[in-house]
Amino acid sequence: MENFWAKFKITLFYCFTLIVASTLINPASAQNADREADASFIRKIYDQSLTDGRCYPWLEHLSLRIGNRLSGSASAEKAVAWTRATLDTLGLDSVWLQPVSVPHWVRGEAEQVRIVGAKKSDDLALHALALGGSVATPAKGLQAEVVEVKSWEELDKLGERNLRGKIVFYNRPMDPTRIRTFEAYGGAVDQRVQGASRAAKYGAVAVLVRSMSLRLDDFPHTGSLRYDSAFTLIPAAAISTNDAELLSARLKKGTPVQIFIKMNCQTLPDAPSFNVIGEIRGTERPNDIILVGGHLDSWDVGQGSHDDGAGCVQSMDVLRNLRRLGYRPRHTIRCVLFMNEENGLRGGREYAREAQRKGEFPLCAIESDAGGFTPRGFSFDGDESVFGRFFEKIETYGPLFEPYGLELTRGGGGADIGPLKGMKGLLSGYSPDSQRYFDVHHTAADVFDTVNKRELELGAASMTALVYLLDKYGL
Amino acid sequence: MENFWAKFKITLFYCFTLIVASTLINPASAQNADREADASFIRKIYDQSLTDGRCYPWLEHLSLRIGNRLSGSASAEKAVAWTRATLDTLGLDSVWLQPVSVPHWVRGEAEQVRIVGAKKSDDLALHALALGGSVATPAKGLQAEVVEVKSWEELDKLGERNLRGKIVFYNRPMDPTRIRTFEAYGGAVDQRVQGASRAAKYGAVAVLVRSMSLRLDDFPHTGSLRYDSAFTLIPAAAISTNDAELLSARLKKGTPVQIFIKMNCQTLPDAPSFNVIGEIRGTERPNDIILVGGHLDSWDVGQGSHDDGAGCVQSMDVLRNLRRLGYRPRHTIRCVLFMNEENGLRGGREYAREAQRKGEFPLCAIESDAGGFTPRGFSFDGDESVFGRFFEKIETYGPLFEPYGLELTRGGGGADIGPLKGMKGLLSGYSPDSQRYFDVHHTAADVFDTVNKRELELGAASMTALVYLLDKYGL
Repeated sequence: MENFWAKFKITLFYCFTLIVASTLINPASAQNADREADASFIRKIYDQSLTDGRCYPWLEHLSLRIGNRLSGSASAEKAVAWTRATLDTLGLDSVWLQPVSVPHWVRGEAEQVRIVGAKKSDDLALHALALGGSVATPAKGLQAEVVEVKSWEELDKLGERNLRGKIVFYNRPMDPTRIRTFEAYGGAVDQRVQGASRAAKYGAVAVLVRSMSLRLDDFPHTGSLRYDSAFTLIPAAAISTNDAELLSARLKKGTPVQIFIKMNCQTLPDAPSFNVIGEIRGTERPNDIILVGGHLDSWDVGQGSHDDGAGCVQSMDVLRNLRRLGYRPRHTIRCVLFMNEENGLRGGREYAREAQRKGEFPLCAIESDAGGFTPRGFSFDGDESVFGRFFEKIETYGPLFEPYGLELTRGGGGADIGPLKGMKGLLSGYSPDSQRYFDVHHTAADVFDTVNKRELELGAASMTALVYLLDKYGL
Repeated sequence: MENFWAKFKITLFYCFTLIVASTLINPASAQNADREADASFIRKIYDQSLTDGRCYPWLEHLSLRIGNRLSGSASAEKAVAWTRATLDTLGLDSVWLQPVSVPHWVRGEAEQVRIVGAKKSDDLALHALALGGSVATPAKGLQAEVVEVKSWEELDKLGERNLRGKIVFYNRPMDPTRIRTFEAYGGAVDQRVQGASRAAKYGAVAVLVRSMSLRLDDFPHTGSLRYDSAFTLIPAAAISTNDAELLSARLKKGTPVQIFIKMNCQTLPDAPSFNVIGEIRGTERPNDIILVGGHLDSWDVGQGSHDDGAGCVQSMDVLRNLRRLGYRPRHTIRCVLFMNEENGLRGGREYAREAQRKGEFPLCAIESDAGGFTPRGFSFDGDESVFGRFFEKIETYGPLFEPYGLELTRGGGGADIGPLKGMKGLLSGYSPDSQRYFDVHHTAADVFDTVNKRELELGAASMTALVYLLDKYGL
């Protein structure tokens, strides 16, 4: 036994030596030092953004001086000129405009949507907005009986027999039990996007859609629709959630309800416009691009402050923050303010086409297009051939974001950066708290006053921190 | 050696058997089933709160019909009567009022604070609010030169020689780089609490304090001060952050600045009031109390909606949610609406005294007093003799809260439940997102319109979920 114990002790000693040695030669301590340096630089980024950020006054200008900016409008072009001029002041390596031809839809006179009473004085006006891209009604308006539906099954069951000559009223609410409000939106927005053509298929003459909102209030929410050219193009408008409840209650009484609609919106020829782009060139891999962006266009109501003025000014501030901190990136850090996310995505598509033509590698594209609220994290997406490996790396950054309350998860990137997916870089969506977003989304209520300065700045800081880590470590 | 190996193998076999056996008899699979049941019940709690909660209309009533409700005021008594009557409708086992004698401070006429100009028409009025508990100025007001200080060191250095007969202006801002705004508040509020007496020590005649806010705006923020009876009681007021910047800029010019202050606030004799309490009695351990609460009193400006109407209506809704879901608790679930958190904490102290007298065990007390914003988690505290063990158990609930974006951390409970700490139960503070809280805290801007329905309901659901887990598993 003694012999055994002697051998056992020697073995034990070797094991111990091995453990100690592996501890010494493994790069854990070097990594720790890096992580400390990273934590400290990220702390500097937040300090910079919270004490010297510019996103908030920039958003004030964009919201109050320029205002809403639908693709093709004069204010969209003002926004292009002003953001370009502002980027020009930041000491970047280049700032330029990328031409994009955009759809040009105009709302025209204020919509009239009303429940027709027994006599004219009994008419009840509803709070309504034509959906973006909708055709007009006949010049004198149209009047028809309204039929409420809550599902496609119900629509199909009613069919032509019950719907020909009628106005279809889509009234399936967003699901309030979804914790992430974007999921609730995703579960209802098909009515707005497809509703017109699916009703036209059965001979309906117009559609009304319950606004995409979790609140009960008087704001109609516009947004894009998609016509199927196989069917007649019929006019479509959103009505406020309060009015949707009211109309539904009227219909429950059993007596037919007539609605009058007059809209004179129209689609003009495509207009010239631009993506606005600025960059700090990478010292080592200038052809690998880390992109931050939002979309510069908005709907033609309110001030487009959360959607997506916030994402634009945050993206601009990422470059300014890095410059102010004297950071020299290895990769090219590029801010892209996309034109025409709301009703065409022409900017995002054109950007991807050009990137491909130039042979650039979009290492990571980060989009902020979910409002200027308190940061909760980033979601990541990518081509499945590369995503697993990329996301493993991203997950190691988790502890660095914990002090700021951010989580790194799998999930969508964003509409504008979507066309880059095939180029096999990483896509990321900045995820602020989503509870209040659909209170203001696509409405007259999306104004500067609803944006909190710190929440906006914390978002710009979070985006800057992610860019820093991506630049330092690559993928 | 063979003998050894034989023994070694037998030992190995025993070890293996032990591991297998412990796996089989350990309650992991039972635990999994429980966790699924828990996840499913918690999902029901959120559904209930988001589709059938009452906290939002209750807060509307408390804010718009009753309004602000400082201890001793008529509206505080209205709030007592109305919340009691509301709890009476919920089918609880008992609802009662616990008498509390409270301080009764009244603001009197609107404060006058102005920079004195060369002639009367040059006077510049500042946005000011007397601090709660402040004494009045002489009936005709007082006028003196103002001296700005940013730290206690600076105050002590200036000393009596420079401060006798002067007005001290405390102008150390909250630190914007703190991610958790309560930490920024904690780093500045000493000026408001101690400023008057520490200036009086050097013969100052009054103090002005920069409002406790991270925003630059025109709202003065009131709040309590604490006089040290060793020194003369001098009047104290908060001025808005914009005015603090303005005054500081004036002083930088080098010319002495005179300030006129007139306030006729006073402290009346203590007034009778109440904590409002309702409970569902526990079926197994009725003497072990799980408490949810907020404070019913507020400052005498705005509507006290975030501070702390939100915490009150959420606590009430916890009981209603449990009742609506047919949940029969093992422990007693008690909602306590404390009186006088803002300027005395008499309600919290009286509650703890009575609990001790009755020999109750406050298993866990949860306070919601940080605004009605999106839930981020709960912090936990307790007497050190028991806390470690308790918190280990709490941490196992973490995964159940992940789908709702909540974290369970160590940290403070709340002012009202603080006096229970010695009774060795667990204390917990509900932690909503803190970015906007100090925009409205103790100001005329703390009104119902700044509260988001979903954010409030998500908070009530989160509190209900925690109560459910505490009740089911104990500590």
